[in-house]
Amino acid sequence: MKIITKKQVQNRLRRVEGQVRGLQKMVDEEKYCIDIITQSSAVRSALSAVEDLVLENHLSEHVIHQVKQGQEKKAIGEIISVFKKSKKK
Amino acid sequence: MKIITKKQVQNRLRRVEGQVRGLQKMVDEEKYCIDIITQSSAVRSALSAVEDLVLENHLSEHVIHQVKQGQEKKAIGEIISVFKKSKKK
Amino acid sequence: MKIITKKQVQNRLRRVEGQVRGLQKMVDEEKYCIDIITQSSAVRSALSAVEDLVLENHLSEHVIHQVKQGQEKKAIGEIISVFKKSKKK
Amino acid sequence: MKIITKKQVQNRLRRVEGQVRGLQKMVDEEKYCIDIITQSSAVRSALSAVEDLVLENHLSEHVIHQVKQGQEKKAIGEIISVFKKSKKK
Repeated sequence: MKIITKKQVQNRLRRVEGQVRGLQKMVDEEKYCIDIITQSSAVRSALSAVEDLVLENHLSEHVIHQVKQGQEKKAIGEIISVFKKSKKK
Repeated sequence: MKIITKKQVQNRLRRVEGQVRGLQKMVDEEKYCIDIITQSSAVRSALSAVEDLVLENHLSEHVIHQVKQGQEKKAIGEIISVFKKSKKK
Repeated sequence: MKIITKKQVQNRLRRVEGQVRGLQKMVDEEKYCIDIITQSSAVRSALSAVEDLVLENHLSEHVIHQVKQGQEKKAIGEIISVFKKSKKK
Repeated sequence: MKIITKKQVQNRLRRVEGQVRGLQKMVDEEKYCIDIITQSSAVRSALSAVEDLVLENHLSEHVIHQVKQGQEKKAIGEIISVFKKSKKK
């Protein structure tokens, strides 16, 4: 992974970890259900943004390389599979 | 929140926290991008399942109560807003 | 369904039908793949907005009634099942 | 678009058009809200599957070509933008 992307991803994942602990605290303190769901949605969005960053890195690092090496089938198959996963939840 | 639901939600959120730390480790160890994205999607699914549990609790605890108290507008507005959030990411 | 909601839903579904025919034309005319995907995403958003309207109607018409009739289990089960479906794709 | 993909996409879009007309009929006939929402979700899934097909074609036809022509930035930017759109709704 590019160093700058790696740093960004690590920072975001640390923030996500903090948010998940925040969620646990909300549950412990019996916060209002709707607020818990809203906060959990925000964590999912943060993870989704991490995935965008990693995908962008994947495309520019690996896919370009794979295509130049003639491994096009593998490259395409993986992107499609990631695309399908991204649509769930 | 019902005690049994609260326990379930807490357990799941603890597991999610572990998964997020697992993701950080994958990034540190330069795992393959596609595997990181796949793992992050799995964490989002786990959070989404937590939201389903909390919503179910919300409906059976608060909404029923709100409807019986004549606070139907509030109840419906909140469900719709949660429904819209659930569709993002 | 409330008459005003019914009219809105019918108008939107007619527009969606036109958009789907527009998509067929784009494919026939060999438009750029990315533009076809973008247009198809827009149609899905339009359908999703229709579902929000119908859900809102459902909550205010049926759910309130079901709760008052003691059919809370049925009401909650259906909302949860719709909630799960809304998250796919 | 490859001829075989084009045929598949056209067939699916024709079926989607029929499904949208089916939805209109359900609304006209005052079918149960939950059934209308379920059917609309199915139409969105069908459109989403069409998008997967078109993306797969895009990757194997255009992206490979773009990479070989040095237009990597354009190729990656478009895939990321499609990826983000796919996650909405």
